[in-house]
Amino acid sequence: MRILITGGAGFIGSHLCDRLLADGHSVVVLDNLITSSINNVAHLTDSNMFRFINQNVADYIDLPEPVEAVMHFASPASPSQTAPNGYLQLPIQTLKAGALGTLNALGVAKRYDALFVLASTSEVYGDPLVHPQDEDYWGNVDPVGLRSVYDEAKRFAEALTMAYNRTHGVKTRIVRIFNTYGPRMALDDGRVVPNFICQALKGKPLTIYGDGLQTRSFCYIDDLTDGILRLMSSGITKPTNIGNPHEITILRFADTINGLADNTAGTILEDKRTEGDPQQRKPDISRAKKLLNWTPQVTLEEGLTRTISYFRSKLAYRD
Amino acid sequence: MRILITGGAGFIGSHLCDRLLADGHSVVVLDNLITSSINNVAHLTDSNMFRFINQNVADYIDLPEPVEAVMHFASPASPSQTAPNGYLQLPIQTLKAGALGTLNALGVAKRYDALFVLASTSEVYGDPLVHPQDEDYWGNVDPVGLRSVYDEAKRFAEALTMAYNRTHGVKTRIVRIFNTYGPRMALDDGRVVPNFICQALKGKPLTIYGDGLQTRSFCYIDDLTDGILRLMSSGITKPTNIGNPHEITILRFADTINGLADNTAGTILEDKRTEGDPQQRKPDISRAKKLLNWTPQVTLEEGLTRTISYFRSKLAYRD
Repeated sequence: MRILITGGAGFIGSHLCDRLLADGHSVVVLDNLITSSINNVAHLTDSNMFRFINQNVADYIDLPEPVEAVMHFASPASPSQTAPNGYLQLPIQTLKAGALGTLNALGVAKRYDALFVLASTSEVYGDPLVHPQDEDYWGNVDPVGLRSVYDEAKRFAEALTMAYNRTHGVKTRIVRIFNTYGPRMALDDGRVVPNFICQALKGKPLTIYGDGLQTRSFCYIDDLTDGILRLMSSGITKPTNIGNPHEITILRFADTINGLADNTAGTILEDKRTEGDPQQRKPDISRAKKLLNWTPQVTLEEGLTRTISYFRSKLAYRD
Repeated sequence: MRILITGGAGFIGSHLCDRLLADGHSVVVLDNLITSSINNVAHLTDSNMFRFINQNVADYIDLPEPVEAVMHFASPASPSQTAPNGYLQLPIQTLKAGALGTLNALGVAKRYDALFVLASTSEVYGDPLVHPQDEDYWGNVDPVGLRSVYDEAKRFAEALTMAYNRTHGVKTRIVRIFNTYGPRMALDDGRVVPNFICQALKGKPLTIYGDGLQTRSFCYIDDLTDGILRLMSSGITKPTNIGNPHEITILRFADTINGLADNTAGTILEDKRTEGDPQQRKPDISRAKKLLNWTPQVTLEEGLTRTISYFRSKLAYRD
């Protein structure tokens, strides 16, 4: 298959490229690199099965040849209030990637009768009032809150995807991606995994916002890409959660990273500072288990060890 | 002021035109007439204070001269499953009016440093879990349901409006419009007021879907336009409900119309048939009361009498 991946130079997109190329597919990446890095796909640029187009998906998509699948993964995705690539710093670009970007990507899928895969997010559930979240939960999102630039953009993208499916018969998949981590996360991404690992590798105490008792669940990137590829091959049009339901408090997560990175500086607690940061979010993955026969395989220790190793090499290179 | 009204040939838009012209303003209407009618503004076309542009707001907006306010009212709005102008029949157009249309309209406001008014809707609350709904309620909307083409488009439009306010300093207003009725509703609109009045004037029994005990509240168009103009002159950026909190069961509403129209054919009950049709929706208008000193003034009997009179003349003309 020839596959278009918007945002293919991003953290998740670039792992999809690796996996799809390894499986013998041809990949076209469309990315404007505002929150991603060409370094993530630099090892692929010599392949004649790989092509990179530097372009904003919200502007237009002009492909030289047909594709059989379109994976729309382009969007700022970090909720950090300070990171330069966070969606709070790129509010209008984020809204455009979700609306115009999805529209353009669906247009390509329609034109070539290609399969369309939307990268949606657990953030469509907002600050959820039920735990864990299954796909039939409608969410709790403030439409005019600061984070709505991402949450509402993704909800709109889901609505648009279903409209193309129902109206034009485009074959569509919607993956609701929960917290994912692994190599190629941006060091200055601002999310907890890069923050903690960078601090641990520099021998500093890990900064925890709030009391540290809020829980998170983290999915290793290889498990996510495996779930996405299973979803692609399935006939499931309904949204499907892909994430790791193993819950852990932020405090315990920090201790695990300190242990794996041999950091003895411990943790410090700071006031909670992110508006709308949910206290708890955990996927119900019954649908993926039942219909895709998918469950996460990589343990937190294993995934963190690989991720720490990647960050160590990156930090060494920067110093 | 020179004011751009997208969707200005629609039911609500055309009443805004009347009111703004009466107040001495100049009005430019941009409308592609897919769910509205040039007849609604035909009485204005001779005025040199009025200009009509036949154009889809989702494509682009090219104005010959600056404006001082932009009112974005263009969108299909009827949830009817059968009416030709309902948003369920125009899913992608509806999504585009909410996303691309709002983006284009905000672009005009930004360019000319004009005030922007977004016509939002009680449908951002979806099938609400709290009653009545105040503006801080985040809603209960299925992002992939059939009605999401309207609900999510409007939620996206609100998020985009706030982003332009926060990022570009555009002065913005968001009016969440609840059920409104009055002259110039399309006869084949499919909503309960045109349905009931047309049936009553033809001497037929009024069709009620469900048991008739679901409640609705109806705001007369003149009250709505008054509320919108007060909101414009205010400094309120937050969303503001404008609607009539007077609740009535559909059964009692039908009886009232039959009484006013001298229809003795009564009512008939049919199975509920609209997916996602809320059982109850009623505005909390504390914000409008307190900050705009606005309350609805027109009684249901008064408003219905004027509306029945309009429908009578329309039906007479058609026959």
